[in-house]
Amino acid sequence: MIGIFDSGVGGMTVARAIEQLYPDLPYIYFGDLAHSPYGSKSREMLIEYSCRNTDFLLAHGAKIIVIACNSASSTASHCLTKNYPLPIVDVITPAVNKAARLSRNGRIGLIGTRATVNSGVYASRLQDIRPDCEIHSQACPLLVPLVEEGWLDRRETKMIVRKYLRPLRDKQIDTLILGCTHYPLLSKIIIPRIGKRVHIIDSSVEAALHLKSLLDADSSLYALLRAPAVENRYFVSDLSSPVQSLAASIFGRPVHLEKVDV
Amino acid sequence: MIGIFDSGVGGMTVARAIEQLYPDLPYIYFGDLAHSPYGSKSREMLIEYSCRNTDFLLAHGAKIIVIACNSASSTASHCLTKNYPLPIVDVITPAVNKAARLSRNGRIGLIGTRATVNSGVYASRLQDIRPDCEIHSQACPLLVPLVEEGWLDRRETKMIVRKYLRPLRDKQIDTLILGCTHYPLLSKIIIPRIGKRVHIIDSSVEAALHLKSLLDADSSLYALLRAPAVENRYFVSDLSSPVQSLAASIFGRPVHLEKVDV
Repeated sequence: MIGIFDSGVGGMTVARAIEQLYPDLPYIYFGDLAHSPYGSKSREMLIEYSCRNTDFLLAHGAKIIVIACNSASSTASHCLTKNYPLPIVDVITPAVNKAARLSRNGRIGLIGTRATVNSGVYASRLQDIRPDCEIHSQACPLLVPLVEEGWLDRRETKMIVRKYLRPLRDKQIDTLILGCTHYPLLSKIIIPRIGKRVHIIDSSVEAALHLKSLLDADSSLYALLRAPAVENRYFVSDLSSPVQSLAASIFGRPVHLEKVDV
Repeated sequence: MIGIFDSGVGGMTVARAIEQLYPDLPYIYFGDLAHSPYGSKSREMLIEYSCRNTDFLLAHGAKIIVIACNSASSTASHCLTKNYPLPIVDVITPAVNKAARLSRNGRIGLIGTRATVNSGVYASRLQDIRPDCEIHSQACPLLVPLVEEGWLDRRETKMIVRKYLRPLRDKQIDTLILGCTHYPLLSKIIIPRIGKRVHIIDSSVEAALHLKSLLDADSSLYALLRAPAVENRYFVSDLSSPVQSLAASIFGRPVHLEKVDV
């Protein structure tokens, strides 16, 4: 079984991408809504929550952990990798690798929450693999609340997206990393505003593709994840009605969310 | 000493209002940023957090508790009043009483977070004292993130405020309760959009005035709160930089925030 966690339901875009590649692999999802949003929390807090979430997924039989949250990936993935004896997939490394491969002019844009941008982790990982690249970051703290309200196509959302993207346009980036699992839900309004020639890197899709590369390389891991063949389950640490409808709109079907105390 | 708590720094508008009335009374403020925002959390969660916050303030010598948060007031004030042997001031009752006194046509508007609006507590308290009134509520979940970003006077904020207020205008309300401690920071853009003839009830100011009425009625309480004469302190359960500047802009002076684990 695959274990996936996020601060809320945004990480379901990662679950959806995994499900599209591997409809036969069961997963368990945990959304830490009691502590959501992670984007405005401190580093120490995010490490604590990430360990707690990982323990919960392990207790339910997860054999691999996917951190489906950029804020948690940027602050806690190193710590989880060091302390847990199983593979940890984050949403950052795969996106950085893809951006480094695709960019021609070496000017790469990043949009994310304040926690993700302030961590500087995208910039430092990119420096490790392509030191000629410049990363231009923009924190977009209003986009998560807008998505969570379901304002995916509203005029106000478009104006706010345009405002956030303007400095990146001015820097003439040729590649843009959507550094938050909520943002793929806004890609239709992001693409025309950043320009169609700019490559868009969806960190949710890249994380799923990275999982695929691990499975392609290790067939025993695939067998381990496949058993036991159970239903996917979706747990949350708090539950309110807008969350139900956002989850349904991500998967295009009703999703049964189970509330748990962690 | 007065103990004041909120999910974050919005409740500092209540602390500010108390300070303006009683510059000589010391207070201790607790902002539960580790669990912020409260507006999207469930009822059970808010009761748990509110008890924890109250315990923290009591341990620091508070002799009266001010719940400077509408979401917590609407869900947890009853429970706190029942379980703690000291006066509890919430931000709802005083605002409801004022609205009931001021409204002529009995059509009262309420804006707040989703938790506050869904609780129905404003409507039921108003029914108790003026059954001829109708309350028209509008949840405004994007206003807290906009204020926390410091977008107090931006075009996008004005458009979003206009959109939220339109249904209340259509109902021809003559009184509007700002049912969230963040909203007084937006009153300059709310007033022209709801219409200057509409009475605006600031729940932060009304809570401070209610505290005043308690002190006017009981001079021993005043003496109890006055001793010991110590500095005001501001604690938060998590700390990030935008919060520092929002706190400073509420008080018009730098505010030293101390991070604590609760």
